[in-house]
Amino acid sequence: MVSIRDIAEYSGLSIGTISRYINKSGYVSDKSGKIIENAIRELDYVPNEHARAIFRNESKLIGVIVSSLSNPFFSELTMYFEKKAQEYGYGIILFTTDDNPVKERDAIISLKGYRVSGIITTRTQIADELESLKIPVISFEGGDNSNLISVSADNYTGGQMAFNHLYEIGCKNMLLIKGPNKFHATEMRAKGFLNSAIGKDVNVETFDFTSDFNLNYNFEKIIKNFEIKGYDGIFAFNDIAATILLSHLQGLGIRVPEDIKLIGFDNSFISELVTPKLTTINQSALEISNKCIELLMNIIKGKDVELCEHLLPVKLIKRKST
Amino acid sequence: MVSIRDIAEYSGLSIGTISRYINKSGYVSDKSGKIIENAIRELDYVPNEHARAIFRNESKLIGVIVSSLSNPFFSELTMYFEKKAQEYGYGIILFTTDDNPVKERDAIISLKGYRVSGIITTRTQIADELESLKIPVISFEGGDNSNLISVSADNYTGGQMAFNHLYEIGCKNMLLIKGPNKFHATEMRAKGFLNSAIGKDVNVETFDFTSDFNLNYNFEKIIKNFEIKGYDGIFAFNDIAATILLSHLQGLGIRVPEDIKLIGFDNSFISELVTPKLTTINQSALEISNKCIELLMNIIKGKDVELCEHLLPVKLIKRKST
Repeated sequence: MVSIRDIAEYSGLSIGTISRYINKSGYVSDKSGKIIENAIRELDYVPNEHARAIFRNESKLIGVIVSSLSNPFFSELTMYFEKKAQEYGYGIILFTTDDNPVKERDAIISLKGYRVSGIITTRTQIADELESLKIPVISFEGGDNSNLISVSADNYTGGQMAFNHLYEIGCKNMLLIKGPNKFHATEMRAKGFLNSAIGKDVNVETFDFTSDFNLNYNFEKIIKNFEIKGYDGIFAFNDIAATILLSHLQGLGIRVPEDIKLIGFDNSFISELVTPKLTTINQSALEISNKCIELLMNIIKGKDVELCEHLLPVKLIKRKST
Repeated sequence: MVSIRDIAEYSGLSIGTISRYINKSGYVSDKSGKIIENAIRELDYVPNEHARAIFRNESKLIGVIVSSLSNPFFSELTMYFEKKAQEYGYGIILFTTDDNPVKERDAIISLKGYRVSGIITTRTQIADELESLKIPVISFEGGDNSNLISVSADNYTGGQMAFNHLYEIGCKNMLLIKGPNKFHATEMRAKGFLNSAIGKDVNVETFDFTSDFNLNYNFEKIIKNFEIKGYDGIFAFNDIAATILLSHLQGLGIRVPEDIKLIGFDNSFISELVTPKLTTINQSALEISNKCIELLMNIIKGKDVELCEHLLPVKLIKRKST
């Protein structure tokens, strides 16, 4: 790899002059500037970001820690994190954790080593430890922890929307499928759903389960052992769960939406790939990613950012499954 | 952030001694080692990876350039790249390009700046420029370019398997839906399919189209304007296309598999989420990722790696759509 030393040799100027020019850290004459530019072009030199990171005390790298890329919502989110960070001139170092706190802790240690300018975590399992980090952090779906700046879709309102929709189209015996592992986001969806049912003339049952990190495959096994009987409306905690359930119901000869109305959450691309297309609650991966990066950039630049949970709007997307 | 200077102050030892200890670059007494270890623990010091990168002349970072994370096969692949790289102690810097050569070129410049130890590209649009890079590169689905080390599923055999399966279950009027943009992988699938049909008593038509970078959404529009008539078997270039087609056929009242048998490619998780579950050709994201990282590590360590296209096996997964 071409180094600053090679540029010095090629141009006949000192390393100090070239360093001042590249880092804009002091006076260099126009004539020397042109000679250096020419040497950079000729030798195809790219400045060493590690040297710059030490010099500027800022790495221009952001750490992104996501649960898993096998959930299409999280992979969309990651893609938009990368695109938005690029707009600000930052690269991303990616870690996946499978919601495992040990992996999340290891990721944080690595990111400290890389002196990242900021970190975005998703569904953190170690909120307390993040609070004391001396690196700017934005926590997506980290809950309403009062010591972290967090971003989240308005999951509670989303749960209310799901209930109200099923209620308005006449469902009387509903099933709520709660997400596993007490994740804050899915807990809020369930709360919004259940609170909306209070005082209404409907019967709501809750299907609660625990699962380890390989959610997609486990949910299929779990739901097959659960007897689905007598319900006319189901709200599933996300689109993958709703889609697995749809396939299961169709296998049993239960028609959606004729026998059971079904609604999911996320509005990830799979909700449009199944038949019937899935009614769902939209949370925008693009808006969420942009908000996370913008808040992080504000902190990095020393601007005031409110220490609270920033909620982004959700929306009912009516399709054919209800 | 705690620096090596703070460790020196806390421990009462010189920066030189501490640097020798951390970088294992010279003699440090057991007694001093213990004092340094204690200071590192007390101050929660993590070594600066940028300083180490310069010192060791190796960044312990790998650049990963993927087309898009909205294709579930590529997001799975990225996830496994990250996990496998971690096993070797390397972090990944992620770039997405939407198959845009300008973005790919920008990514390469950034990665040069970070002095990454190696790069993995997917579906490269700038193969010629990669050849002259002075950084180890593994090209996934980069084609049989004789100057790059590439990894790919055995797409040609996969195309043959798809044809043979449709032929064996009695299809006589087949439609091949070719991928857009002349990507090497999908070209090979089509070639395998068409070559297998030669000399057989079947009629095969090819649907060819071009599309820009937002493939998923465009394919839905494109396929809706194409009259599907008289076919009894269809091979689509990947699972997303097959799934969009399935939904379209069902909307038209065409039954799969009764009226038309349908087969996809990838075996990504969506192939199991639709009804009927999709018959497809499996390429293993896990095996491919592991192979890419292993080859890259071998090059980084200076071992001999064959300059060729490393093909990984594919497999017919028979489900309910055929």
